[in-house]
Amino acid sequence: MIQEKISKANNEALNKIVSAQPTLMGIGKALDDIPGMTEKTFLHAGPPVTWENMSGPLRGAIIGGLIYEGLASNEEDAIKLAESGEITFDSCHHHNAVGPMAGVVTPSMPVWILKNKAFGNYAYCTLNEGLGKVLRYGAYSEEVIERLNWIQNSLGPVLRDALTLAGEIDLKTMVAQVIQMGDDGHNRNKAGTSLLIRELAPYIVKTNYTDEVKSEVLKFMHKNDHFFLNITMPVCKCTMDPLEDIKYSTLVYTMARNGTEFGVRVAGLGNRWFTAPAEVIDGLYFPGYTMEDANRDIGDSCITETTGIGGFAMAGAPAIVQFVGGTPSDALNYTMSMYEITEGESGSYKIPSLDFRGTPTGIDIQKVIDTGIRPIINTGIAHKNPGVGQVGAGLVRPPMKCFEDALEAYVNMLEEEGLF
Amino acid sequence: MIQEKISKANNEALNKIVSAQPTLMGIGKALDDIPGMTEKTFLHAGPPVTWENMSGPLRGAIIGGLIYEGLASNEEDAIKLAESGEITFDSCHHHNAVGPMAGVVTPSMPVWILKNKAFGNYAYCTLNEGLGKVLRYGAYSEEVIERLNWIQNSLGPVLRDALTLAGEIDLKTMVAQVIQMGDDGHNRNKAGTSLLIRELAPYIVKTNYTDEVKSEVLKFMHKNDHFFLNITMPVCKCTMDPLEDIKYSTLVYTMARNGTEFGVRVAGLGNRWFTAPAEVIDGLYFPGYTMEDANRDIGDSCITETTGIGGFAMAGAPAIVQFVGGTPSDALNYTMSMYEITEGESGSYKIPSLDFRGTPTGIDIQKVIDTGIRPIINTGIAHKNPGVGQVGAGLVRPPMKCFEDALEAYVNMLEEEGLF
Repeated sequence: MIQEKISKANNEALNKIVSAQPTLMGIGKALDDIPGMTEKTFLHAGPPVTWENMSGPLRGAIIGGLIYEGLASNEEDAIKLAESGEITFDSCHHHNAVGPMAGVVTPSMPVWILKNKAFGNYAYCTLNEGLGKVLRYGAYSEEVIERLNWIQNSLGPVLRDALTLAGEIDLKTMVAQVIQMGDDGHNRNKAGTSLLIRELAPYIVKTNYTDEVKSEVLKFMHKNDHFFLNITMPVCKCTMDPLEDIKYSTLVYTMARNGTEFGVRVAGLGNRWFTAPAEVIDGLYFPGYTMEDANRDIGDSCITETTGIGGFAMAGAPAIVQFVGGTPSDALNYTMSMYEITEGESGSYKIPSLDFRGTPTGIDIQKVIDTGIRPIINTGIAHKNPGVGQVGAGLVRPPMKCFEDALEAYVNMLEEEGLF
Repeated sequence: MIQEKISKANNEALNKIVSAQPTLMGIGKALDDIPGMTEKTFLHAGPPVTWENMSGPLRGAIIGGLIYEGLASNEEDAIKLAESGEITFDSCHHHNAVGPMAGVVTPSMPVWILKNKAFGNYAYCTLNEGLGKVLRYGAYSEEVIERLNWIQNSLGPVLRDALTLAGEIDLKTMVAQVIQMGDDGHNRNKAGTSLLIRELAPYIVKTNYTDEVKSEVLKFMHKNDHFFLNITMPVCKCTMDPLEDIKYSTLVYTMARNGTEFGVRVAGLGNRWFTAPAEVIDGLYFPGYTMEDANRDIGDSCITETTGIGGFAMAGAPAIVQFVGGTPSDALNYTMSMYEITEGESGSYKIPSLDFRGTPTGIDIQKVIDTGIRPIINTGIAHKNPGVGQVGAGLVRPPMKCFEDALEAYVNMLEEEGLF
């Protein structure tokens, strides 16, 4: 009886995932477009966290964000302001947004605007800053702030105007293509970045900026193979959000980390977070850095795995092991094992080498607990101190406690309803 | 004793392939840049063939080329001129050039200029025309000629000027990347086309043409995932040409078809062609067409397989089966079987899913005869009549006779030298 209810609910949830129609609508400004933003609202990755409990890279990104917004002129002032309580910190996920690594979104930042045309909901994400010293890894030096200003004043406006000329872009088809081109959509986005550039370039040319600016914009995207990550993330975000509040569904619709805790949300349990301390990442460290330097797992980017790409699609992206470690057969095995904990398969994101089998989609907390297999996530690694930046990339899993607590809460709910 | 000579020669030949440094230098004009061109020289794919013996699509492309050059004003005049003997027909391969399908190169066409910087030799190829009714498939209607004019007057000059600003482009690295992105470099060139666009777009913007023209150029490339084929082909051509005249080597350095005959050239046998009637292709036909409509195998594009990509790299490009037929496991098996007839493995073109194993490289006529395994080629299929165009795509192999005759000639050579 109850199993039937659960099956039906999980089937409905899976159908919502596979029938999503993520579409790129344009570029806006966080303050104007993200619901619930104010001039003093700073969003961050993962479940909610107070300034006191924020990890180094998240603090670093907040400091940088305050300087970028002109709310503080240096690190010291920024820390004082952050401590004062004057700034509202909140989860990106509470505002239909997602952010990679620290995931800090401040009011003036330009954001991609996506719509899930199947269900009418929106998702937002900032524009990817590139590699090296960048805000999302907790760096906030002058070059970081200058780049954020350039993104606000050049990159954002040029892409906004190009998108106005281009019209909507069907991102489901584009992501389906990149999965066939060796991207996983999380830490390998070379194909996605390429497809986005070729789609937009004919329109960038026609915007009203100087050739110098247009050329800089095209070069900036070209130099950063992670540029498309900030598209796949809101693609997945707007795909998963319609699962919130599917009564009785045991499928996960959010996984996210703030650098201190890992948080999971389950369709049948509304917007409640199940959190536990985030893990340290096993990976490839850049020269001069070791696991000692690593912050705990951080970022909203595992919304990709939640949706069935990223680590779940690594069988189709074996070249990613050059970046995150392991071998191509590990990559294959990761994908295969994820079929054991998922409700079904993607109807659109298909892996050619697996005979075009859809990627494993819809993590079921029951299956995670039954099998003891936790979702696999590939991810960047931030330095644990504010101001440093990226130190590597690797593989990680959510703490089992998130799933245990979620299942316990789910059983309690059934008990309260007299169903268990 | 002789086996040692052969081993040494084949080893030298393989080293020449793997140490090639194909580099994009710029864009020129066939008449000015291709050695031996005259105002009345028309190059074609495959081994030499007379007008009388040309297949339908090659005749169609010659007719179209004569109209494009203003040497004839209609089909009837063009045929008369072709029959008159006034036009010199010759193999692209005799002029450091390659051409897909009919492969017709006429004096006014813009051409990619590539240099193998390891050995100083050059290769040339026209710019890809796109899909549908195109000269290389034997079509010569008004839209075909108009497009050729646009390529000559807009696409060529814009790309030429962009390349002047961009400087040389290392194509070995670029092809290595596309092999890791699901391209085989012959019938799947989606990644290559994408990488080329993102590399050139920042410079296209800065050329002195109107935004309208620049936008058209970017759109034209974007709309044609085969655009990069005309880059991989001369990449392979300039990689293989240094093998000509490596005494005693039994490796193949040319495979090419003119639509009537398939031709093979072997390093130890100089520039002599070993030919046999080309085969009909087993493949996926477009709606309304069958094998009955197909011309025999045609084009220089199998220079890709000669170099160890194309059909030889299909294990890394399983999505290609959607275009040429078969299953992903067929694609894997084709690659695996090619290791049996090749001298070694590419040091640069590596297949992630095979644990980054280099593609099978350097076809040895001895191994082809010993194993009975012929090289696998994936290819487009032209209609057998002039003026129609593409009717499908599929898989084909060279006639065994080419290899038998080559081995016989090779043994004769050894006998003449008293070595056998």
